[in-house]
Amino acid sequence: MKIAFDKIINHLKTQGFVFQGSEIYGGLANSWDYGPLGSELKNKLKSCWWNYFVKRNKLNVGIDTSIILNPKVWIASGHLGNFNDPLIDCKSCKSRFRADKLVEELYVDINAGNLNYDELESFIKENKISCPKCKSFDFTNIRQFDLMFKTFQGPIEDDSAKVYLRPETAQGIFVQYKNTQRALRKKLPFGIGQIGKSFRNEITPGNFIFRTREFEQMELEFFFSPNDTNNWFDYWLKKVQDFILNELNIKKDNFIVREHDKEELSHYSNKTVDIEYEFPFGRGELWGIAHRSDYDLSQHQKFSGEDLSYLDQESGIKFIPHVIEPSVGVERLLLALLCDSYCEEKLPNGESRIILKLPKKLAPYQIAVLPLQKQQSELSVKLYEKLLLNFDATYDESGNIGKRYRRQDAIGTPYCLTVDFETEKDNCVTVRDRDSMEQKRVNINDLSNYLTNN
Amino acid sequence: MKIAFDKIINHLKTQGFVFQGSEIYGGLANSWDYGPLGSELKNKLKSCWWNYFVKRNKLNVGIDTSIILNPKVWIASGHLGNFNDPLIDCKSCKSRFRADKLVEELYVDINAGNLNYDELESFIKENKISCPKCKSFDFTNIRQFDLMFKTFQGPIEDDSAKVYLRPETAQGIFVQYKNTQRALRKKLPFGIGQIGKSFRNEITPGNFIFRTREFEQMELEFFFSPNDTNNWFDYWLKKVQDFILNELNIKKDNFIVREHDKEELSHYSNKTVDIEYEFPFGRGELWGIAHRSDYDLSQHQKFSGEDLSYLDQESGIKFIPHVIEPSVGVERLLLALLCDSYCEEKLPNGESRIILKLPKKLAPYQIAVLPLQKQQSELSVKLYEKLLLNFDATYDESGNIGKRYRRQDAIGTPYCLTVDFETEKDNCVTVRDRDSMEQKRVNINDLSNYLTNN
Repeated sequence: MKIAFDKIINHLKTQGFVFQGSEIYGGLANSWDYGPLGSELKNKLKSCWWNYFVKRNKLNVGIDTSIILNPKVWIASGHLGNFNDPLIDCKSCKSRFRADKLVEELYVDINAGNLNYDELESFIKENKISCPKCKSFDFTNIRQFDLMFKTFQGPIEDDSAKVYLRPETAQGIFVQYKNTQRALRKKLPFGIGQIGKSFRNEITPGNFIFRTREFEQMELEFFFSPNDTNNWFDYWLKKVQDFILNELNIKKDNFIVREHDKEELSHYSNKTVDIEYEFPFGRGELWGIAHRSDYDLSQHQKFSGEDLSYLDQESGIKFIPHVIEPSVGVERLLLALLCDSYCEEKLPNGESRIILKLPKKLAPYQIAVLPLQKQQSELSVKLYEKLLLNFDATYDESGNIGKRYRRQDAIGTPYCLTVDFETEKDNCVTVRDRDSMEQKRVNINDLSNYLTNN
Repeated sequence: MKIAFDKIINHLKTQGFVFQGSEIYGGLANSWDYGPLGSELKNKLKSCWWNYFVKRNKLNVGIDTSIILNPKVWIASGHLGNFNDPLIDCKSCKSRFRADKLVEELYVDINAGNLNYDELESFIKENKISCPKCKSFDFTNIRQFDLMFKTFQGPIEDDSAKVYLRPETAQGIFVQYKNTQRALRKKLPFGIGQIGKSFRNEITPGNFIFRTREFEQMELEFFFSPNDTNNWFDYWLKKVQDFILNELNIKKDNFIVREHDKEELSHYSNKTVDIEYEFPFGRGELWGIAHRSDYDLSQHQKFSGEDLSYLDQESGIKFIPHVIEPSVGVERLLLALLCDSYCEEKLPNGESRIILKLPKKLAPYQIAVLPLQKQQSELSVKLYEKLLLNFDATYDESGNIGKRYRRQDAIGTPYCLTVDFETEKDNCVTVRDRDSMEQKRVNINDLSNYLTNN
C-alpha cells in the first residue's frame, strides 16, 4: 500500500525527526533541520556507510576536505562556466522555469540537458510549448543560472576574493589524491571516501528533503589502472546494491537499476548507472555510479601543473588513474529509508499503529525503558541509567502502557523493556518486540546478551 | 620538554593527518584538509564528545541544523551589525591590523574589545602606537569588517536574497529549542547538543588549524529554570574538565581555567570561564563555558513573535529558560590532543622515536598487522581481514620490522601484531605495546578479548 507523502512528512515533523529550517522566522525556502531523532538516525546512516565503504573495506581510506576550495579547482573541474541551469521566464505571468525540464516533462524521450540554449529555444518555439501556469506562449530568452553559491573571503569584495561553496565533495578528493596516495604509500587500486556538506543554488528545490540547496553527500572515488582487468564498475555497483538491500533492508521492489543511455551521459563519463527509488512523489535518483575515466585527475594535472600520474612499480608504466564514483546524498538515502520503513498496521483490537520498521542497528533508540506504574519509576530509572552506558536508550513514564508502546513503534524503537510489580522479586523485565509485538520475560542480568544477540 | 610547533606540523603533514587545503593550486589562505589519519582521529574525537555530552547523558539530546538560516536569526542574535572586527590600515606600508589587537598587544591590561571606534582611535593616537611593521604613525580611520560570510540564495543577487553562513552552531539550537522541547516532551532542565561547521571571515587566521575561517564546533546549550538551585555552571565546568582529563588524557599541567573579569564579558553573559591550553605557540582558548542568561531566547522571542517561554507544570510559573553554554572548536581540541600526545623518546640502542601517545580508543588505527617476513604475508593478510571486521586495523609489510614499529608509533597505533614463522604452528602472534614497547605472545583466538580488555 502506497502511503501519502504528506502523512509521512507530518509524522516526521511531529515526532522530532525533521523540522522546517528557521521555522519561528517563517522558515527559509526548502531548508530543513534534523531534530533529536532525525539527527541520530542520520548519524547512524552515515556511520553505516562509512564503515561499509571506508573502514571495513581494506581497499579504501577516508578523507575530510574543506567546503571552500581554491576557485581554480572549479575551473579545472568544469563547474565554473558549465555548472548552471538554463532559466526561462514567462513574460505574461512572471513564472520562472528550467527550460530543459519544461521540454522533458512534455517530451520524455528528449534529453534536453544535451541541447544548447539556441536549440532549446527553437525546440520550445517549434513545438509550441506554453507556460504550464498561464498557458501563454510568451517566454523570455534562456539565461544561465550559476548553481554555485559564491562568497568573498577576506575584507575586500572583489574578484580576487571570490570563492565558492563546493557543489560536490568529489573534487576535494581529487585535489588531495596525490597527498593521500603518498602519505599512506597506497598502491592502486584504492579508494578515497568522504562525507560532507555540499551546496547547490537550485532554482527548483523541493519534495521535502529530496532536493535541497544545502545537503550532505557520501562519495567514494575509486582509483585503478586502465589495464586492470577487474571490472570495478560492476564490483561497486554490486556493493551499492548489497548495502541498500542488506544493510538498510530496503525492499527490492522499491528501487530499480537504470543505465544511462549515450545521450544522457555527462561529458566526462563513459558509463553511468543510477539506482532510482520509488518515492511517494514518484521515482527519483538515489545513488549514481559513474565511470569518470581519467577526466578529473587529467584536468587537475593540466590546470595545476602538478604531476598526478601514478608509476606502476612492477610494469614501470606511468599513467593517470581511472575512477569509478559511487555517489549518494545523505538526505535522499535517509528519505528512502524512512519511506521504506514507514507502515500502518491494523491491530487485533481494531486500533491501528504506525511503525517505523527501521533496521534495529539504525533506530534512533535501541531500547525504551517503561515502568508499568509510577511505583516502579525509581527502579526503572536505575535500569535506564545502567543501559544508557552501552545502548541508545530512552525512558518514558507518561500515559498508559499501550500508548507508550505506540509512541516507541512510531519512532522505530526495536525493544520496549517494561518494569512491573514482579521485577523487584524476580529481577526480570518484559521485553516487547516492535515488529512481532511478542513479549518475553528476560532477567536483567541477561539483558545485554539478549539485546546484542537478537 | 617543549616541542617546536613546526616539527609537529611537519609530522602531521607527512603522516597523512593534515594537508594544506587546495595544495596543488598553491593552497588557499589558512585552509586545511584532513587526510585519512586526521579525519579518522577527528571523527573519533567528535564521537567521543557526542557520547559524553549528548548520548550518554540522560539530560541531553542532539540536533543538526542548517548552515544557512533565515537572515532574521542574525539580527535577533546580534551577529548582524555587531559581529565584526575594527580594521585599521597603515597608510605608509599598507599593512592591515585589528585595532583592538594592536592596543592589547602593547597594553595587556586594556580590554580593547569594549572600546568603541572613536575611543580606540584616540587611544592609538594618545599613546603613540606605531605600525608594528614599518614603525610609522600614519594609520587610516578604523573601518568595520563583517565577520559573516554572505552569499545569495536563488537566481537574483539582491538584498532580499542575501543569506549568511552561520558563524556559530548555537543559534540553530535556540531557533529549534521550542520544536525540540515539544516533540520530545522534554522537561527542564535539559540540553541540546550540536556538532557542525561554522564560518568566520577572520582577517587574521593562523597558527595552523588553531584559527581558520572554516571550522567545526561542538556546542551544548543547557536550558534550566532561573529558580533551579543546582549550580549548573559548576556542573558543566566540572564535566568539561573531566572530559579533557579523563576522556582525552590531556595533562593537567598543560591547561588552565580562567574566569573572565567584568570588563571582558560579552554583553549577553554574566559569567564566562575559559579553559586555555598551552599550545607550542603560546596559550590559547580551548573551551568556553558561558552563562548566557535568557538573552538568546528572549531576543528570538522578540524578533520572531513566537512564544518561547516554558510553563513549569508544578509551579504554574511561565518563564524564559536560562542557558549555560559549553562550546569548543573541534580543530582546536584536536590540535591540543595532538600536541599533548606528541613525544620524542631516546631508545636504548641510541636511536630515537616519535610517538603519538593518543588515548587507545581515539587512535586512528587500534591495531597494525605486520608479517615478520614476506613468507608470512598470506597468513597475515587473512588475520588482518578478520580483525578489520571489528577493529580499526592497518597492514604493513614494507621495510624491516623496527622501521615498521617506528611508523606505527608515529601515528599512535597502540598495538602491533607480528606474525612470524612460529605463528602457523602455535597460532600465536607477538603483541607489542606502543608506549612500553613490551611484547607478549597471544593466541589468535584470544586476541579479541585481549585487545578489548587492555
